Amino acid sequence: MLRIPYTDVLDVLLRLLLKLGFEQKRAALSARLFAEASRDGIYSHGLNRFPQYLRMIQSGIIVINAEPEMAKTFGALERWDGKSAPGNLNAYQCMARAIALSRQHGIGCVALANTNHWMRGGSYGWQAADAGVIGICWTNTLANLPPWGASDPRAGNNPLIIAVPRPKGHVVLDMAMSQFSYGALAAYRMRGEQLPVDGGFDTAGQFTRDPAAIETSKRALPIGYWKGSGLALMLDLLATLLSGGLATHQIPAESERETNLSQVFIALDPAPMEQAGTLDRLADQIVEHFQSSVTGGERVRYPGERVLQTRTENLAKGIPVEPAIWREIQQLDIAL
Amino acid sequence: MLRIPYTDVLDVLLRLLLKLGFEQKRAALSARLFAEASRDGIYSHGLNRFPQYLRMIQSGIIVINAEPEMAKTFGALERWDGKSAPGNLNAYQCMARAIALSRQHGIGCVALANTNHWMRGGSYGWQAADAGVIGICWTNTLANLPPWGASDPRAGNNPLIIAVPRPKGHVVLDMAMSQFSYGALAAYRMRGEQLPVDGGFDTAGQFTRDPAAIETSKRALPIGYWKGSGLALMLDLLATLLSGGLATHQIPAESERETNLSQVFIALDPAPMEQAGTLDRLADQIVEHFQSSVTGGERVRYPGERVLQTRTENLAKGIPVEPAIWREIQQLDIAL
Repeated sequence: MLRIPYTDVLDVLLRLLLKLGFEQKRAALSARLFAEASRDGIYSHGLNRFPQYLRMIQSGIIVINAEPEMAKTFGALERWDGKSAPGNLNAYQCMARAIALSRQHGIGCVALANTNHWMRGGSYGWQAADAGVIGICWTNTLANLPPWGASDPRAGNNPLIIAVPRPKGHVVLDMAMSQFSYGALAAYRMRGEQLPVDGGFDTAGQFTRDPAAIETSKRALPIGYWKGSGLALMLDLLATLLSGGLATHQIPAESERETNLSQVFIALDPAPMEQAGTLDRLADQIVEHFQSSVTGGERVRYPGERVLQTRTENLAKGIPVEPAIWREIQQLDIAL
Repeated sequence: MLRIPYTDVLDVLLRLLLKLGFEQKRAALSARLFAEASRDGIYSHGLNRFPQYLRMIQSGIIVINAEPEMAKTFGALERWDGKSAPGNLNAYQCMARAIALSRQHGIGCVALANTNHWMRGGSYGWQAADAGVIGICWTNTLANLPPWGASDPRAGNNPLIIAVPRPKGHVVLDMAMSQFSYGALAAYRMRGEQLPVDGGFDTAGQFTRDPAAIETSKRALPIGYWKGSGLALMLDLLATLLSGGLATHQIPAESERETNLSQVFIALDPAPMEQAGTLDRLADQIVEHFQSSVTGGERVRYPGERVLQTRTENLAKGIPVEPAIWREIQQLDIAL
């Protein structure tokens, strides 16, 4: 594994996006979102995803110069049309709009249709928390998860992000509805490890911790079995009904053709209701109590804590990058 | 098991509440919410819970004639003080207020502090859906769930409800953050059954499907292990920060002293953005596709489907009531 300085990763991504024809500001934001995902340890949706992102631009699925437009407004609830623009830029703009609505109305919700994969969902949670507000967002996805009791993938793994701002470290939950993503399954398999808990069914329909068996059966488990299966359905229903966009079953079921996603961005701003510092103290108390649990070893982590640890380490030592990916990025830099 | 007609259950509850000094309208609403919980198959938070509800009134934890008050308002986001009033009446009123806000602003959020157990959380999801809007609500609880990696209960099981209106049957998810409630564990144990999936740890720290072993260890599993553990923390953080009320770790950790809960009620009204019927058709398509999954036997159920089946059956045949509970209710009716 190479260790590449964060600024080098940012620079090459920015250069590539500019060569592709992105406007300066949009290139800078997109490059930053990709580089920050890798910086924070979400490698699957950072640099590692960039080659596929370029292919989806080249195949016309992602329209780089499209701008999202507000389609309908109803007070603190808005509908936006993503116009097939890059998913990370659309998502960032819609969370920014939800934040602005929350400053005006206490709560704001932007539902976005016709967008592309937002890459790392956590980005928009951190964005809200950095702005000092509570952020909630989710996306639907292609059908990649069997509902509980079923063997064919009719639900999306529909990642859900909830973020709470905190000066000592934002609390940011970023979770998909499958217990393990296909990326995580592949990583366990390549390390020759079993999963720590059952992650799906094998082809015989038995629970298994063998990542390869789940990759073969395509029967990953929803979190909490019937509960995550139901929650995945609800998130798809809400994203679709609020945005007026496509539902999971209407989205092309191949990774490189996955487009026209529906997403929801909610921001809540409780700060005007409290004296300065009160909410921060409350959040600290809750997190500290949660972390003071009795364990046999390591302390309980809060959501987002590991991200900050990885961020610190990767900024100090450089971002871990697979040599094959770095070579591919550099070849693109020459070819474009 | 007895089968008692729905109206008989409603009548006796109404009579008891009136004898306790509830105002007519409040008695009628509370009796209806309890009776509907049993009618819909949520026995643990219907009639079965009523004796404890009375004890908590008699011990002064629940103040029957208190009325919740708006404490702060900020556009579409409001804070209410529950004044230790009955939890079901407070929750119903706050969801009604969130619905009213959603009709005005597209989205509305009411955060409620100082309230009592809301009994069946699904009630307020059905309430929103019956009003034709999307409802989302959750509550924090006493600490009854160990965070992932811990052995002591420092998280709440914090039920989350999401409801989508649909003429063919509302889609209503009503789920706690523990894979099985203690009520469910007891029911499996009494039937002499093992759980269908691991529900917690035994005292030796091994995953187990034995309900009694989990009742002994008090180490129930969060849904999705680390994911549900994180989601439980987020729901407590949001309920506390938005309402300004108490967090899980501040709530008395005994069932009959559990009070001063914090809750959030969100309603979203997308109807004005669409032509009549469009959202219903979209929701039907999504549910139908979800249910057309390949299974080895029974069709996949959508959240809320079983509630409607149970409701129909219980209205036709009477509500199943344990003889001991019915005797207790009748004795109360004489004693009060």
